[in-house]
Amino acid sequence: MAGEAGFPAVRLDDDALDVTRRLAELHLPGLIVVDDENRPLTILPGSQVLRFLIPRYVQDDPALARVIDESHADRLRANLEGRRVADLLPAEKLPLPLADADDTALEIAALMARTRSPLVAVVEDGRLLGVVTSTGLLERLLAG
Amino acid sequence: MAGEAGFPAVRLDDDALDVTRRLAELHLPGLIVVDDENRPLTILPGSQVLRFLIPRYVQDDPALARVIDESHADRLRANLEGRRVADLLPAEKLPLPLADADDTALEIAALMARTRSPLVAVVEDGRLLGVVTSTGLLERLLAG
Repeated sequence: MAGEAGFPAVRLDDDALDVTRRLAELHLPGLIVVDDENRPLTILPGSQVLRFLIPRYVQDDPALARVIDESHADRLRANLEGRRVADLLPAEKLPLPLADADDTALEIAALMARTRSPLVAVVEDGRLLGVVTSTGLLERLLAG
Repeated sequence: MAGEAGFPAVRLDDDALDVTRRLAELHLPGLIVVDDENRPLTILPGSQVLRFLIPRYVQDDPALARVIDESHADRLRANLEGRRVADLLPAEKLPLPLADADDTALEIAALMARTRSPLVAVVEDGRLLGVVTSTGLLERLLAG
């Protein structure tokens, strides 16, 4: 399940480039990283992946970005080649709020409001079922 | 311009309910709040709007969410009625990274990576031209 395109979960040993493509395609605030038992571990946000795509010296001094020809995307992609999801994660795991499958939309909204997270992982027996985003939740709460 | 549906900018005196609908529709991490001269002031994230949509006692104790019938979305909407964007913003303004219109995609990526922001406002002469999201940027950088 974690490997399916379209599903917002990835594993620690998934290929970094494949995962980056999925993140771009899904337009989510981040992907959920799960273990081999499909239990959520943390979130991998787009801004974190950008840290690996962009050479370190450009991060430290954005003015240096001009010395790289951005049409050479293959050189950027090379920064992700051979890497795994585990390599992309920050040293300190980002917290990921969890909701139960039988929680109401309001309970999830309250959790999201309290944690200020744009994304909540929904689990059943500790295993990931899916994600809820703040915009998806607003849509649902306003539609009723 | 700030009032156009589809454009990710709102003004301090825009109606809170209209703005929430736009946020849900655009699926962005947040909307850009601009002043009357279209200069970016801050970001209004979805999780912040949820804080107003959800009654305070439910935020403090999500278990209480069950006592509210979520099919009664009109009661939730009532929490936003008569409010303006200015009422929704937190006491401490959230920081919003700014990029210049002539910055390269790589420069914006470096800014986003450094600030860990999912969203950067692009300005020209201090006025908002549009926003760049981390997923939009990943898409562009990988496509070349």
